Amino acid sequence: MQYVKIKDAIVEQIDAGMLAPRQKLPAERSLAESFGTTRVTLREALSLLEAEGRIYREDRRGWFISPEPLRYDPTQTLNFPNMARAQQREPKTVLIAAKTSLADKLASRLLNLAPFSNVYRVDRVRYLEDRPVVYVINYVRAERFPHLLDYDLTHSLTDIYREHYGVIYQKTQYRISTSTLLGNIAQALRATSGTPAMVVERTNYNQHGELIDCDIEYWRHDAISIESVAELTGR
Amino acid sequence: MQYVKIKDAIVEQIDAGMLAPRQKLPAERSLAESFGTTRVTLREALSLLEAEGRIYREDRRGWFISPEPLRYDPTQTLNFPNMARAQQREPKTVLIAAKTSLADKLASRLLNLAPFSNVYRVDRVRYLEDRPVVYVINYVRAERFPHLLDYDLTHSLTDIYREHYGVIYQKTQYRISTSTLLGNIAQALRATSGTPAMVVERTNYNQHGELIDCDIEYWRHDAISIESVAELTGR
Repeated sequence: MQYVKIKDAIVEQIDAGMLAPRQKLPAERSLAESFGTTRVTLREALSLLEAEGRIYREDRRGWFISPEPLRYDPTQTLNFPNMARAQQREPKTVLIAAKTSLADKLASRLLNLAPFSNVYRVDRVRYLEDRPVVYVINYVRAERFPHLLDYDLTHSLTDIYREHYGVIYQKTQYRISTSTLLGNIAQALRATSGTPAMVVERTNYNQHGELIDCDIEYWRHDAISIESVAELTGR
Repeated sequence: MQYVKIKDAIVEQIDAGMLAPRQKLPAERSLAESFGTTRVTLREALSLLEAEGRIYREDRRGWFISPEPLRYDPTQTLNFPNMARAQQREPKTVLIAAKTSLADKLASRLLNLAPFSNVYRVDRVRYLEDRPVVYVINYVRAERFPHLLDYDLTHSLTDIYREHYGVIYQKTQYRISTSTLLGNIAQALRATSGTPAMVVERTNYNQHGELIDCDIEYWRHDAISIESVAELTGR
């Protein structure tokens, strides 16, 4: 199929270093011309490249070459700034919203709370080199962290828990699935609705085995590679 | 956007149990009519539902409602038949090909082998309730398992290793990413080229810490939910 060949040709150019990470691709019209193909076929090729995480689209700005994904180990305490810096990446966090509210269905289920309990909900967007890569929603059991929202929430929550409440993450239960970016989450990541996403849901326990918070992370799927090592148990 | 509303309407019907797992959706033309929309808009809605794993397409057969995904814990020994049965699912394995060959670039890298070493390559398709859900390629260090290909390879490799070679998996190193199904892999899973996939790469070590094999699994992304629990280490 012609579009697979065009895709392979672009992959070769990326692998050969002719197209650098974060570089903008030429307009679809000129790309189609240079491959001697139609825009329909070109779009099929681009959409394959997007699905394979080789390129990404920013809404109204065009297509770009994906940088290396961030290696993410779900068995490590998630501290985005530290994780990014350890991989020579430049992290930034923007606070979208933070409020106290009554637990909705999802929060009650994940935090194992009675309906209408108080929870904090913190929405943040994480950036790598000024590109938004993940939208994170934290639901936090409010009774464990009085006045949490008074702290600077662009800092790591795990740091705030440790420094101000003496709480550390001890155990995490996680689920990884795929979905798409929609609505305000897509918008915050400069993505068009329907862009592929990797979704990581984590429920976290403190050093006394108590459930303290959960986070739901909507990653631009090309920006993350989940990697870990496990000693095997059972069969 | 209209297609998001149509998507939500279909999700509601699934959640309310009006559409059962594995049920075939009506033809696109009649669906478009019943929602009073165009086929273009309907297809956008279907494509969102596919990306969210709620429906799946079989090539030339149409759209179907996705059953519950298989819960997959990468920190457990992968034994597909046992894992499926423990979740009241009906597993089946079909052997596509098994041969001895020289390690290609990918196999040399994953198995840490000198180029042109001998490896076994075993290609299999795993089914749940007669639906193909994952294409698995195993590369095995041939020198550790003489005559491996003489065994019935529709059985679990971990069972064969244990029973005939006294080898068990002790440690696994895994990587999870997203991609698409293409070519013969797509075909074996009855998928159209470009269908979203979850890719799991695992490198496995025996009880003496020696690298023994690796597997690359191309999952229909709606068929798998990766779930695990971890004691946290480091930060």
